[in-house]
Amino acid sequence: MRPQIVLFGDSITEQSFRSGGWGAELANTYSRKADVFVRGYGGYNTKWALFLLHHIFPLACTKPPVAVTIFFGANDAALQGRTSERQHVPVEEYKENLKKMVQHLKGCSTTMLVVLITPPPVDEEGRREYARSLYGEKAMKLPERTNEVTGTYARHCVELAKELGLRSIDLWSKMQETEGWQQKFLSDGLHLTAEGNAVVHREVVKVFSEAWLYAAEMPNDFPHHSEIDGNDPEKAFQQRCL
Amino acid sequence: MRPQIVLFGDSITEQSFRSGGWGAELANTYSRKADVFVRGYGGYNTKWALFLLHHIFPLACTKPPVAVTIFFGANDAALQGRTSERQHVPVEEYKENLKKMVQHLKGCSTTMLVVLITPPPVDEEGRREYARSLYGEKAMKLPERTNEVTGTYARHCVELAKELGLRSIDLWSKMQETEGWQQKFLSDGLHLTAEGNAVVHREVVKVFSEAWLYAAEMPNDFPHHSEIDGNDPEKAFQQRCL
Repeated sequence: MRPQIVLFGDSITEQSFRSGGWGAELANTYSRKADVFVRGYGGYNTKWALFLLHHIFPLACTKPPVAVTIFFGANDAALQGRTSERQHVPVEEYKENLKKMVQHLKGCSTTMLVVLITPPPVDEEGRREYARSLYGEKAMKLPERTNEVTGTYARHCVELAKELGLRSIDLWSKMQETEGWQQKFLSDGLHLTAEGNAVVHREVVKVFSEAWLYAAEMPNDFPHHSEIDGNDPEKAFQQRCL
Repeated sequence: MRPQIVLFGDSITEQSFRSGGWGAELANTYSRKADVFVRGYGGYNTKWALFLLHHIFPLACTKPPVAVTIFFGANDAALQGRTSERQHVPVEEYKENLKKMVQHLKGCSTTMLVVLITPPPVDEEGRREYARSLYGEKAMKLPERTNEVTGTYARHCVELAKELGLRSIDLWSKMQETEGWQQKFLSDGLHLTAEGNAVVHREVVKVFSEAWLYAAEMPNDFPHHSEIDGNDPEKAFQQRCL
């Protein structure tokens, strides 16, 4: 009944329904107006996510989502020869995979609002501390991700959005505009703090609103209680949903 | 694809996706296992909610929810002759309306897990303060809800659950077991604080788990990333979703 919004991505999307998470906040923003579905897969890169695409977004779907965020890259950007190399996807392939996702989604619905989100920046010191907290002295000395390399993925993501005429959120650049982004927005150098989640929420709402998903102008699914006449409640429902 | 859980209720359900809300927490508990849909309607009583029933839960639905929480009563229990009397529903009618909801849901699916939740207790002093903060001296001196009256609605709700062999959560009683419940669990004498939300979340998870919706034993929708072979990713997906 309500339009559907799907959040497709990695752990940063999967965790978005934790307390203060950007996904839960988005569901709250579109309360009674749209349903928000989380399709976040921790640890996934775009290569693995492609295996899910036809399952999550079947082409024959009679009611495709009105909007989808595609939010990958944090794992694709893991470096070769380091502890997370299993997840590495070369940057050109990352871009190609994103393109395949967009083409598939547009095949589901030509009117779907597709928004590409770049990975957030990486705080290498934060990652090191996190690794030390898990593995102590055994923690690898060399970072498994660098901010610079993740930045190239972000640029490819934004570039693709331009090429395809899509809206995008350059989270990598946006977050680094704020002094102290390393601790302010990132909890372990990679995942988001409550303030980091707030940035994503704000940016997604902004992009959605600039398109045509402006919550304040979308109808509630049913009458507001103040529209219901206590003595003749049926009337409000006849007008709005019968 | 994933099983669906629907939260049907009034403002306490509608607001459950605010930061720290019990609905968002529930979605997080069932992350990658079930989708949580909020169908909360602020200000609604059971009489008005009946108008929505066939729309939200169509009988001909090919994939009905696996579980539904029904969480009304806070508005039904508004007193006659006071500021919120529009919302008042006599307690016997409240019980009858809940019964109609359950019968309808069982008509959608005989295996659906239906959980009745009683209204939370009312802190009359908290309500008075809230009214004063809104209307100042013009605020009515007499409470529009009392804890005692809301308690009778809670008892009728629990009674109905027993009669129908359903699980229920007696939130009215549960919350009052804790010293200082008035400020601890209620933000304005009626709606929930973060701690109040945590109580609801905990109780719902408990009841769901005791039935057959135990998150830890439910499968993830797709392979965990650690199951994916970096050199042969297809294998994991052939086993799990192709």
